Amino acid sequence: MYSIVDLHSITQPQDPQMLRENILNMAASLLACGIDPTRSILFQQSQVSEHAELSWILGCLTSMPRLRHLPQWKMKSKQKNEGSVGLYTYPVLQAADILLYKSTHVPVGEDQIQHLELAQDLARIFNNQYGEFFPEPRALLSGPRKVKSLRDPSSKMSKSDPQKLATVFLTDTPDDIVLKIRRAVTDFTSEVTYEPESRPGVSNLVSMHAAVSGKSVEEVVRLAEGMDTGQYKNVVAEAIVQKLQPIRLEIQRLRADRGHLESLLAKGAENARSLAAPVMTEVRKLVGFY
Amino acid sequence: MYSIVDLHSITQPQDPQMLRENILNMAASLLACGIDPTRSILFQQSQVSEHAELSWILGCLTSMPRLRHLPQWKMKSKQKNEGSVGLYTYPVLQAADILLYKSTHVPVGEDQIQHLELAQDLARIFNNQYGEFFPEPRALLSGPRKVKSLRDPSSKMSKSDPQKLATVFLTDTPDDIVLKIRRAVTDFTSEVTYEPESRPGVSNLVSMHAAVSGKSVEEVVRLAEGMDTGQYKNVVAEAIVQKLQPIRLEIQRLRADRGHLESLLAKGAENARSLAAPVMTEVRKLVGFY
Repeated sequence: MYSIVDLHSITQPQDPQMLRENILNMAASLLACGIDPTRSILFQQSQVSEHAELSWILGCLTSMPRLRHLPQWKMKSKQKNEGSVGLYTYPVLQAADILLYKSTHVPVGEDQIQHLELAQDLARIFNNQYGEFFPEPRALLSGPRKVKSLRDPSSKMSKSDPQKLATVFLTDTPDDIVLKIRRAVTDFTSEVTYEPESRPGVSNLVSMHAAVSGKSVEEVVRLAEGMDTGQYKNVVAEAIVQKLQPIRLEIQRLRADRGHLESLLAKGAENARSLAAPVMTEVRKLVGFY
Repeated sequence: MYSIVDLHSITQPQDPQMLRENILNMAASLLACGIDPTRSILFQQSQVSEHAELSWILGCLTSMPRLRHLPQWKMKSKQKNEGSVGLYTYPVLQAADILLYKSTHVPVGEDQIQHLELAQDLARIFNNQYGEFFPEPRALLSGPRKVKSLRDPSSKMSKSDPQKLATVFLTDTPDDIVLKIRRAVTDFTSEVTYEPESRPGVSNLVSMHAAVSGKSVEEVVRLAEGMDTGQYKNVVAEAIVQKLQPIRLEIQRLRADRGHLESLLAKGAENARSLAAPVMTEVRKLVGFY
């Protein structure tokens, strides 16, 4: 059993230099967080042309309205007032990413479930049309607890949040982290409790604290007894620094050796290609391209 | 200078056996009509994965509304009430077909001009974003004269017309052709004239007659002096049979040797790939994929 991690490329044009750096950053981050390249195939999707090829074929099996209500398009196209064809058809490419390897299980967050459902539908439609071929990929749901924005605990923490203090990055220095947690929006009650509905701000801190320390929410709340939220923020910041510091240093180490990262990705692409090519050959035969 | 003829594959699922036969029929027809495989690269588009790859990148440069008003989508999606993603994004794939070879000239009918304009726009957008790379492809317009349906001379003759007598096929037998021309819709005036506006039916016959005989419309009308439309139809049918008979026989000859056709297409795909691969390598570099 292998797991496949693919780094997505673009849905709209970016500065090519920046794009390259982003991809290397992402690869370094995944490795630093524990993705083991001897057990996982880590590669950049655009290095394996079969993704685009299968995506075209799956697009011919997808109706236009099917994509219109998917969450990502609804969100991003509203912001940008009509997005690109790449953004609209992105879920089809994601389905190709999954099906190309005949994947059986896909780890997803709840916000990606509808996209996985599209991949399941497309496996079914393809199999109905051309005979049983793709397994229907199943969701491996990550836990229900979500990290929320530090500036607005009603929305999720996001890398693309324009508010700089809203998000903790893996590459943040200890000072960055302390500042962001200190400024985190809470409420006027000074006690530390876990009540996500009525006290989302402080509950978000509790939740992050539990996640980085490996403790339960109850334990964490007990530890914070007698502290006010101001004092508690220092404890949370310290716990996050403890957790992220080694990851940050590992990212730095990996980023310092560009050649190693590039060759890891090249090796990954080669491995991915050797899995994708025979599947795509079968697909071409089934649809009548050979 | 090479010209590239690519056989499009699918925008919606088809029976794979039928698809294969259609592709071989189309290849045989093009060869029988005079496409010279020593001067043209004749190949099946889906054999060259770079088309799908470039199409994905161009899709990221195309806005959704840009495709909504293109004639083919408006026509076909109306018939089918919301088509597939493949049908909607097909003009982007066509643009990739053109730009992948840095084509400078593209022979098109008037109904394809808007699709060529998309390819021109995408060349411009790409060049603006990533630096001068694609030449802007120019239209080689085929003549303004159109062959009209034999059953309804107000609409064009089309291979996909459900009315069997509306269309002359390259593979029609002489008897088929005679029957179709005899049944062609004309009007109640028996004289033969060329007045496309007021007498579209008989003018369509004149126009076809001129096209297959290589004569001018004026010459053809002079030849028909004194005939009524009934007699004239026999003359037109005979001229079309004369023109199409050798093509039909050549198609039959080519279709009888499946191996030869397959190897011609395989050789064409190899040639196409050797042109497409270096362009795609450059494109990947420019957009930041390497």
